[in-house]
Amino acid sequence: MGLPTKFDWQKLQQFCTDVFVEAGVEKEKAKVVAESLIQADLRGVASHGVVRTAIYLKRIEESMINPDADISIEKENDVTALVNGNNNFGSVVGSEALKIALSKAKDQGISLVGVKGSNHFGTGAYYALKAIEQNMILLVVSNASQTMPPTGGVRPFLGTNPIAVGVPAGNSDPFVLDMATSLVARGKIIVAAQKGESIPIGWAVDKNGNPTTDAEEALEGSVLPLAGPKGYAISMFIDILSGVLTGAGFGKYVNNMYENWEDPQNVGHSFIAIDINRFMQLKTFKQRMDMYIEDIKSEPKADGVEEILIPGEIESRRELELKENGIELPQKVAEELNEIGKRYGLSLEDASFQKQNVK
Amino acid sequence: MGLPTKFDWQKLQQFCTDVFVEAGVEKEKAKVVAESLIQADLRGVASHGVVRTAIYLKRIEESMINPDADISIEKENDVTALVNGNNNFGSVVGSEALKIALSKAKDQGISLVGVKGSNHFGTGAYYALKAIEQNMILLVVSNASQTMPPTGGVRPFLGTNPIAVGVPAGNSDPFVLDMATSLVARGKIIVAAQKGESIPIGWAVDKNGNPTTDAEEALEGSVLPLAGPKGYAISMFIDILSGVLTGAGFGKYVNNMYENWEDPQNVGHSFIAIDINRFMQLKTFKQRMDMYIEDIKSEPKADGVEEILIPGEIESRRELELKENGIELPQKVAEELNEIGKRYGLSLEDASFQKQNVK
Repeated sequence: MGLPTKFDWQKLQQFCTDVFVEAGVEKEKAKVVAESLIQADLRGVASHGVVRTAIYLKRIEESMINPDADISIEKENDVTALVNGNNNFGSVVGSEALKIALSKAKDQGISLVGVKGSNHFGTGAYYALKAIEQNMILLVVSNASQTMPPTGGVRPFLGTNPIAVGVPAGNSDPFVLDMATSLVARGKIIVAAQKGESIPIGWAVDKNGNPTTDAEEALEGSVLPLAGPKGYAISMFIDILSGVLTGAGFGKYVNNMYENWEDPQNVGHSFIAIDINRFMQLKTFKQRMDMYIEDIKSEPKADGVEEILIPGEIESRRELELKENGIELPQKVAEELNEIGKRYGLSLEDASFQKQNVK
Repeated sequence: MGLPTKFDWQKLQQFCTDVFVEAGVEKEKAKVVAESLIQADLRGVASHGVVRTAIYLKRIEESMINPDADISIEKENDVTALVNGNNNFGSVVGSEALKIALSKAKDQGISLVGVKGSNHFGTGAYYALKAIEQNMILLVVSNASQTMPPTGGVRPFLGTNPIAVGVPAGNSDPFVLDMATSLVARGKIIVAAQKGESIPIGWAVDKNGNPTTDAEEALEGSVLPLAGPKGYAISMFIDILSGVLTGAGFGKYVNNMYENWEDPQNVGHSFIAIDINRFMQLKTFKQRMDMYIEDIKSEPKADGVEEILIPGEIESRRELELKENGIELPQKVAEELNEIGKRYGLSLEDASFQKQNVK
């Protein structure tokens, strides 16, 4: 019988947790990393899902991530903190920083926690959703290694520095924005190249920094910031908040997770948490959010549009669906995970999805 | 002799101040409004410049702006405040909110001041630059009346809700981001229509919500958020922070300055100020900013690009140049200001630019 490619999310999460524990990660931290990966898969962001297990393990082995590092607070007052991840897992460092940010904001109204010495922290939505669970507003940004030229430049300089926002609502799905500051993901250009299709102007530049519609040429060049100079400016601001202000790397000093095996990434993040109650009663705010969302969703729709969607709505529906029906992984990813499992005496097959018998 | 169209910035600012004083605005407030308008002209943002004098005056006359209103603080603690502009001038309300935000952030590290009951507050850069003068980081957002459909929508629902950021640097020009969340200003589409040129896909939709490259059709439709769903999401978030959270209008409840003469605009803003010293010494931060900016500016340039620019750099150069060489106004704007001046016994001609004799 072949290797299964459809998995039960809870069992797959347990499998990943066990893998990291076997690789020497403390159980509570392993759980956080696995949860962050599985949530990305559930929400349809496969690029940030369990596909990353292999690279994370390799970076531990090569001492590029230190899962035993203490996460320390270097500076702190009632509403700010500077956290040093000391090169622990990005999602572990990020979760700790989030906890501090939420606690301070609850006490005081708003907080800013800056983070240095971190690694790729997974999806921003992971933190946004945790803030929403606690009825808080969160704005979180992170820098990343170089992929986009500045406007007028030729080669990658800025990361696709992501921004995520979580805002609770009442009866409606919450507002969850989670986006890179590139116009499109490089993956879309790879798909176009495979299909022999051209790409729209604005997606990428060729290796000389010239706009191109040729997907092959684009792959030799770089993806572009969203909306040209506007995306470039937003990406820079995220780098400033995440890196320049915190003491983390910024620009060319954020190292590439896949290519640099000499130095830790030194990624930086910033978490801004807001307590709604300082402005209005939470109940009133949630009513206003529902009204806002309902207003938007009842707008007249363009031809061929079935529904106007709120940021995060597609992802939360997919999460429900995949929790119900299993996560399908590409054959290659399943094989890789299977090999990893074997190394530690863990069976990936045990995590395969079994359709429940319905009476 | 014809009406001059080139003006000395200081004299023009004095003229505008005098106009507002004559219209019944308290002198200190009139100065703020005039400063904000002139600064926009100096920085090349003519749409937010003295061209707005006429509409501001009309809104005072029609009791749509109340220059005598007290700006009140409805809620407050060490790091947050909810300000009610009570329908005073947007730039006056915004300046007061900024003052509170900067003072709290200096004392505590970060602050959030939400504003309701305000009006169009001019450019975001006006506040960003004031924060920079005090060595503070500022993030300011405002909502606006409806101009952009949500992704999948047909008619305007969201404003081009702007975001501005100011970050001080050392020897380099500071970082000043100030942008609407539309991909392009409607003005660019007007220009294309006048020239009979087509516009790129992504700028606008026609009146049925369909993408269009026809500038005329676009003018009957709506401008689009930058980068499609990403801009839509950012614009929504700005509306949430500015309007939903503060008690101001949001979505369709922010009234149009030019079209609605029954109700005040009820615009909302939010100011987040950050004290750099809580994270690192200001001197170190400025050195890091200079390094970052120099790194970007020394990147290889694409064909035909003379210089890689930092957000705000073009504007600050234009400001220096126009302070030196005068502000050129369109004939129509000069005529309108001249008529306004006559009404109050003020001479616009006295503000005309005189070339200094160089020895």
